[in-house]
Amino acid sequence: MRMTDTIRLRLDVSYDGADFSGWAAQPARRTVAGVLIEAFARLIGAETPLGLTVAGRTDAGVHATGQVCHVELPVERWTELEGSLLRRLAALMPPDARVRAVTPVPDSFDARFSATFRRYEYRVVDRPWGPEPLRRHDTLGWMRPLDLDRLNAAAAGLLGEHDFAAFCKRKEHATTIRAINRLDWRRDPDGVCVATVQADAFCQAMVRSLVGAMLTVGDGRREPEWPAKLLTLRERSSEVTVAPAHGLTLVAVGYPEETEYAARADATRRLRA
Amino acid sequence: MRMTDTIRLRLDVSYDGADFSGWAAQPARRTVAGVLIEAFARLIGAETPLGLTVAGRTDAGVHATGQVCHVELPVERWTELEGSLLRRLAALMPPDARVRAVTPVPDSFDARFSATFRRYEYRVVDRPWGPEPLRRHDTLGWMRPLDLDRLNAAAAGLLGEHDFAAFCKRKEHATTIRAINRLDWRRDPDGVCVATVQADAFCQAMVRSLVGAMLTVGDGRREPEWPAKLLTLRERSSEVTVAPAHGLTLVAVGYPEETEYAARADATRRLRA
Repeated sequence: MRMTDTIRLRLDVSYDGADFSGWAAQPARRTVAGVLIEAFARLIGAETPLGLTVAGRTDAGVHATGQVCHVELPVERWTELEGSLLRRLAALMPPDARVRAVTPVPDSFDARFSATFRRYEYRVVDRPWGPEPLRRHDTLGWMRPLDLDRLNAAAAGLLGEHDFAAFCKRKEHATTIRAINRLDWRRDPDGVCVATVQADAFCQAMVRSLVGAMLTVGDGRREPEWPAKLLTLRERSSEVTVAPAHGLTLVAVGYPEETEYAARADATRRLRA
Repeated sequence: MRMTDTIRLRLDVSYDGADFSGWAAQPARRTVAGVLIEAFARLIGAETPLGLTVAGRTDAGVHATGQVCHVELPVERWTELEGSLLRRLAALMPPDARVRAVTPVPDSFDARFSATFRRYEYRVVDRPWGPEPLRRHDTLGWMRPLDLDRLNAAAAGLLGEHDFAAFCKRKEHATTIRAINRLDWRRDPDGVCVATVQADAFCQAMVRSLVGAMLTVGDGRREPEWPAKLLTLRERSSEVTVAPAHGLTLVAVGYPEETEYAARADATRRLRA
């Protein structure tokens, strides 16, 4: 078999998670990766391995405006498609999943392992009439009034590197130590409480578990110290409610300078091994 | 028959127009007015006349974040419901139509005739990958690049009081003279071109016809002077394409000071008669 020269492409991707069973391709389920793989299969043939790797494997119902993944294309196909790839993908993909940008990257770029941070936002609104109809797909309605100071006091206790086992769906042998370098709440001009959560990485359902815990502080049912106290647990806490998926959006993934792609990827692989 | 004392209530209303056949109640169609009338019928009984009057009878598919209407409630029902009306309406109405606020107003307030202006926004995005998935319900995708200067040049020629017959669906004996006191385009931080259009009132499909005409200037197919030239026509122009409904949102309705409600309503009734 003759080796084919390939080029690695970074894809910036947006999606409305409502009608997807999450990112990861699964048989007989509509997933974002599945839709992307199908579009590329129509462009370059289903037999060509795509090597699709994603920064954040979002759960069912979770949205993205700043998802990043990478694929490998045979160089000759890239040469043919370069000028039209974005437009062709737009025509081949459904309106709830879009490729925003296609950028050639060095082979040292790994969408998953080179990433330095993932940033999510969670939208929740605490008024009697609930979310604005046009934003109801990405905004949670909360029946009790939320106190922004209490939300931010709860957030402050969760900042930094901790074992987030209490807030994670447990996987065998996988570490639950993560470093949260940003976690704060603001009220936007429309009165929506928006949490911004940024960490090196997240374990499954972690953002929604953190939000669920903070919301019970924000509405007065728990004390601001409570979420931080759970960090002493070595396993998932049954007292933490996972906030609904539709309020959550992956808004950005960070990467280092190009010269650092490989070093960062090596370091992450060692850490997660 | 004994006369019942009534109180007039201003309702501020939001809706996602996608699944509504417009505002106005129609038999066997899902409409915003129909949903509102049904919710009130469950609260105060279907036999009580509601006297529902709206500021802007939006077409099928058009959204609102700032619609205003008024209803009349028997005083004794208002006394019972005052503290809980907003919450009860939220429970009785679907998530795509919401009452944002309920305010008692003097009988001189008329949601339709006291209004001094209606303000609409139209969202359109001119990039190969189209609208952001989470905003695709209220944003039109445009395949050709749009020039903001050309859009604003076209807009400038339409400002002021004119006979907008070329941009209106003709009704017998109804005037098509309107006064546009704001019409401009901006690019928001997400790259979306947003038109703001404000006038004393609009005839049917007028905003979408104005936007349709301006878009053909913005993408270079027409000269900036062209839309203003159509103002000399006394009938609808077949050259004007009506822009799709889903990009359009009624964002605000203006009213004068309370002391001016009646005078404004009288003046409007004379003008529209």
